[in-house]
Amino acid sequence: MKSISFDKINITDGFWKARQDLNSSTTINAVWNRFSDTGRVKAFEFKWKEGDDCKPHIFWDSDIAKWIESAAYIIHKKPDKELESKIEWLIDRIEENQHPDGYFNLYFTLCEPGKRFTDRTCHELYCLGHLIEAAVAYYNATGKDRFINILCKYLELVEKVFVKENSATFVTPGHEEIELALFKLYNCTGNERWLDLAMFFLDMRGTIPHDQSLYEGTHPKYSQSHLPVREQFEAEGHCVRACYLYSAMAYAALVKKDEKLKVACEKIFDDIINKKMYITGGLGSTHKGEAFTVAYDLPNETAYAETCAAISLAFFAQRMFNLTGDSKYADAIERVMYNGIISGISLDGISFFYVNPLEINLINHTRHACVTNGDPLPITQRKEVFDCSCCPPNLTRFIASVGDYILAENDDAVFVNQFVSSEYEENGKKISIKTEYPSQGTVEIKSTFDKAVAVRIPCWCSRFTATESYTQKDGYIYFDKGISDIVIIFDISPVINLSNPLVWENSGKCAVTSGPVVYCAEGIDNGDLRGLFIKRNPSFTVEYSNEYKANIIKISAVRYKDSGQLYRASKYEKEDTELKLIPYFAFANRGESDMKVWINLE
Amino acid sequence: MKSISFDKINITDGFWKARQDLNSSTTINAVWNRFSDTGRVKAFEFKWKEGDDCKPHIFWDSDIAKWIESAAYIIHKKPDKELESKIEWLIDRIEENQHPDGYFNLYFTLCEPGKRFTDRTCHELYCLGHLIEAAVAYYNATGKDRFINILCKYLELVEKVFVKENSATFVTPGHEEIELALFKLYNCTGNERWLDLAMFFLDMRGTIPHDQSLYEGTHPKYSQSHLPVREQFEAEGHCVRACYLYSAMAYAALVKKDEKLKVACEKIFDDIINKKMYITGGLGSTHKGEAFTVAYDLPNETAYAETCAAISLAFFAQRMFNLTGDSKYADAIERVMYNGIISGISLDGISFFYVNPLEINLINHTRHACVTNGDPLPITQRKEVFDCSCCPPNLTRFIASVGDYILAENDDAVFVNQFVSSEYEENGKKISIKTEYPSQGTVEIKSTFDKAVAVRIPCWCSRFTATESYTQKDGYIYFDKGISDIVIIFDISPVINLSNPLVWENSGKCAVTSGPVVYCAEGIDNGDLRGLFIKRNPSFTVEYSNEYKANIIKISAVRYKDSGQLYRASKYEKEDTELKLIPYFAFANRGESDMKVWINLE
Repeated sequence: MKSISFDKINITDGFWKARQDLNSSTTINAVWNRFSDTGRVKAFEFKWKEGDDCKPHIFWDSDIAKWIESAAYIIHKKPDKELESKIEWLIDRIEENQHPDGYFNLYFTLCEPGKRFTDRTCHELYCLGHLIEAAVAYYNATGKDRFINILCKYLELVEKVFVKENSATFVTPGHEEIELALFKLYNCTGNERWLDLAMFFLDMRGTIPHDQSLYEGTHPKYSQSHLPVREQFEAEGHCVRACYLYSAMAYAALVKKDEKLKVACEKIFDDIINKKMYITGGLGSTHKGEAFTVAYDLPNETAYAETCAAISLAFFAQRMFNLTGDSKYADAIERVMYNGIISGISLDGISFFYVNPLEINLINHTRHACVTNGDPLPITQRKEVFDCSCCPPNLTRFIASVGDYILAENDDAVFVNQFVSSEYEENGKKISIKTEYPSQGTVEIKSTFDKAVAVRIPCWCSRFTATESYTQKDGYIYFDKGISDIVIIFDISPVINLSNPLVWENSGKCAVTSGPVVYCAEGIDNGDLRGLFIKRNPSFTVEYSNEYKANIIKISAVRYKDSGQLYRASKYEKEDTELKLIPYFAFANRGESDMKVWINLE
Repeated sequence: MKSISFDKINITDGFWKARQDLNSSTTINAVWNRFSDTGRVKAFEFKWKEGDDCKPHIFWDSDIAKWIESAAYIIHKKPDKELESKIEWLIDRIEENQHPDGYFNLYFTLCEPGKRFTDRTCHELYCLGHLIEAAVAYYNATGKDRFINILCKYLELVEKVFVKENSATFVTPGHEEIELALFKLYNCTGNERWLDLAMFFLDMRGTIPHDQSLYEGTHPKYSQSHLPVREQFEAEGHCVRACYLYSAMAYAALVKKDEKLKVACEKIFDDIINKKMYITGGLGSTHKGEAFTVAYDLPNETAYAETCAAISLAFFAQRMFNLTGDSKYADAIERVMYNGIISGISLDGISFFYVNPLEINLINHTRHACVTNGDPLPITQRKEVFDCSCCPPNLTRFIASVGDYILAENDDAVFVNQFVSSEYEENGKKISIKTEYPSQGTVEIKSTFDKAVAVRIPCWCSRFTATESYTQKDGYIYFDKGISDIVIIFDISPVINLSNPLVWENSGKCAVTSGPVVYCAEGIDNGDLRGLFIKRNPSFTVEYSNEYKANIIKISAVRYKDSGQLYRASKYEKEDTELKLIPYFAFANRGESDMKVWINLE
């Protein structure tokens, strides 16, 4: 099973076309501008000295690297001289400032020279990983190999220090990333040296006693260093670190045909989607360690659900799909694509959430009136840049390369995993998809491939119709080779979803979805959200929003009224009302507001 | 309106007799023993020196003072040579170690000599307040005035330093307590000097700019120093500090006929009971500052609901009752008497909760597996002593003097506020109450007073019957003078209570009560509490527990089953079940267990 790379697919219109256009026209420049304002770009001139403003941070290399990767994806689809010259300028600076032995790192060159590879918490290999991903993307986009060569030279040093000499104070990175990047580099160059280096970092993980704890006060689980990777069966620790690791493990399982790694990945993935994932695909139930907690612990207001963690779930799921061909992985990708990832970016494409809560009670932000060190709550409005600004360029690269998730192929069939208006041509054969998804459930597919067409049945879908005859297997609708004109209509009528009874936070509550889109109620539309209950058998009206390129739902509800008493035996008075629900991804675009995904069900 | 003091009332049997017997036989000694183990008793020998174990803490004087007060209440009702000799030994030590100018304080004599009255955070006047309460109790119990005289000498110094010279670094205490104690002393001695000193501390509060903030990171609200007392209309800050202050304000409003203070107290009280009080009477919605937060913010699992805060609500309510004669204040006392106060002590009388949560999910205590600095949750089993062990001796004094709350009198009637088997004789007249309350709703009253008998209609009561003819007024059932034999039957059938719709934590949930007793479900009886819903029109069975001296309730419920999926559109399977509910005050007496007061309603 092989996913078709985004560069071979043209997204022609609809939801994702609009998102990609905004990304290319606005977001990529907005992120660049904020990275310039904050000194991240200028830092690459390597002129910063102690006492200057804008001290380079240990992860700034990775911020810029993800921006390069994003810009490379954009120019891969549509050349852009301005973006390319920015990338070239950055590569010039990287080349100039690479140490003679290959080392390159902003922080450890400018701020702590002499301390390289001495602190496992300091993101050096994480930064290198992102630089590799950027270099691979840029090479694929332009055919220029200068950046890759710079990094291969650095990697030779890494191989020497970590594998041959074992002379660093640690063996495996504190923040995983280089592993999956090395697999990409191997995939791009075919050089097994980088495959071996990736496997070295995977195989060593959790086996070195002095390589387990990270920050003071963290358990080895925090950085997935508590067990050898083939013995890890539950999702643990910092979510982004975790899913970057799991992504690498899944790729390794595929290329190495490593059954133990595959089993570990399958168990971990199931642990996530069956026990530790918000309905939005968000991961991370606590700000403490930005981490997975225990099964079924999914608080809404204090959800962490970092944007990067949702993106990392897509990475992991994509590699699991390629490993297994199981549609559930494409289901997970769809869940994050339409919810927990794009909730991280404002509708105007210039500001971002790092944390994506599923509930906002503004009044709770004032609850600690008499102390200044109240418990933290997620911010309620997106920001243009963060001190730790990993999420914005992760969004730009995800959106620019979202084509990666649409199609896959094996010997027997072309698999339509995501319903995005798009075209793919190969050897004179073509498949095209036309749809208004997710605002409509109709998907038209034309294919001239000499293969069956297999269309994923989304996990949320209980009813569909198709114009052509089909068979159903393993979560796919199969249309035989030769059927070239297919129209499928998925029923996207709004659905009332319940949580597993073990999720104590959501007892008695429901979340409304339509197709893959999770909905929420905002105070700005509905007034005080307290005391609102969705009716047991609610009526719906659905209307299209051009702004969201998705539907708005109105649903019948009741509002219980404050009677002035705090407790009473008899029911409170109620009145019928209608609740306006908007896509969760669109929340917090109209000023501060209360918000709820999980709403009481009468 | 005048409450009848506990010393004039004999509690003859039933719920509170058993509690008082346990208090006198066990708890008072257990607290003494733990205070001995931890160096609190020995500290009164004033031999501690730097480097020794058990360094005196700034509030140890108050711990011992509350113990003395408790013991004094016990010996007031029934002489006990052993308790009295312990008290005398302590008074000897206090007398010996009182400074020539009257000053007395463990910490500032032993640990920081020369620093007296320089730190508003250091509880000096709070300690003095508790010593005064103890001395008044001991004088009332024994007629011995040595202890009172010692403290009057200290108070002369306080008056000089704070009022005449204004030479301390602060004007009003950081932790209120001395105000209400001074009113007690005035009441006992008739000396207006102490009334004036109490009024000084009240009047100055919130008026002195340098007297507003307390600990770093706290707002003046934390210690109710943000506004002059007559301009405070909402319950703010540290709950125990707050209610001790409000108690003093209410007393001052009465003796000074101060209408502005009365209005402030009424508004504050209503703010508490209508917006900021747990159904158990617990106060304090956050561990941060042990404080009130915002209206309707009543989280169950992270409730603070300090035992001392519940007790302080009884103090405040009692003074409000004497000020107004309104039955709602007696309602509040009943609520804390049967719930949030006695939940603080184990059924065997030897261990204590400082924090009284309304929900325990044991699994949440492991949720921060990958970091060590997880968010704190309340402990799940009572402890025999705490570093800050204010609650245990507060419980012993409350239980020993619970008779204070039963009866009140004015020219027209004797008011039966609490339903406790007891007798009260005065000038040859007698009123007696016989009841199995709270396990039964029948209350028999015999009175030979030449006054009406007014029996409170509890706020939870929707139905009652009486054997004699009555009129109903202002929350009381009035029986005319001359009716001497009354039997009232309050319907204590279990009730399903709902929260105000604005309490977001309790949306869709209910709490079961029977009479004044709030119930909870424990995991030890019911297995996993997740997925349990009480049926809409549940059936109940009620059985008496001799251990609890209250009823156990079985209620029909359903249990939704885990299907392995995290989210789904269709309902989860369910099965009928029966939920065993025990009184909230009895939770956590059988080992660690999940617990819930607020349970989903189907």
